[in-house]
Amino acid sequence: MVATTVMVKVKQAHINDFIRACVMNHEHSICEPGNMRFDVLQSADDPTAFMLYEAYNSPLSAAAHKKTAHYAAWRDTVADWMAEPRKGIPYTGIKP
Amino acid sequence: MVATTVMVKVKQAHINDFIRACVMNHEHSICEPGNMRFDVLQSADDPTAFMLYEAYNSPLSAAAHKKTAHYAAWRDTVADWMAEPRKGIPYTGIKP
Repeated sequence: MVATTVMVKVKQAHINDFIRACVMNHEHSICEPGNMRFDVLQSADDPTAFMLYEAYNSPLSAAAHKKTAHYAAWRDTVADWMAEPRKGIPYTGIKP
Repeated sequence: MVATTVMVKVKQAHINDFIRACVMNHEHSICEPGNMRFDVLQSADDPTAFMLYEAYNSPLSAAAHKKTAHYAAWRDTVADWMAEPRKGIPYTGIKP
């Protein structure tokens, strides 16, 4: 398993817009071949802080996600709602 | 879903010990009632940096994890292998 956490800080006025866009991305992404996780999480301490936890069964499957229409739609839709550039952190899954 | 990311920096000499202890914790934790995720991840950039991604279907189930024998065993076993105190970050799951 390969995983990425994507840390996003969202402008206060666009919290609900951002959640809607992420839910749509989630619904499509969990149907991709090789997807194992596409969890959308909101910080318990800061409602403007989000984490997307994305995991795939191979680097190829993970790379294919970036070529999907729903990824491009999410990326372009949320771009102006971010308070700062998002940060992706790559991990190797030990279990699972 | 409620989730916690636990960020751990491990002493170089104890990377493999730490992985073994986390795998044991994982195997027990995924059998707990209400457990949805117990992923053990190693940074792709820094082999001494780990993330545990733990998710449960309710705060009660998450709290029950902290009362299990396997959690206590993990906590006590790995304590001296950490290079700095671990950091837990709480999240609310939007999806799932």
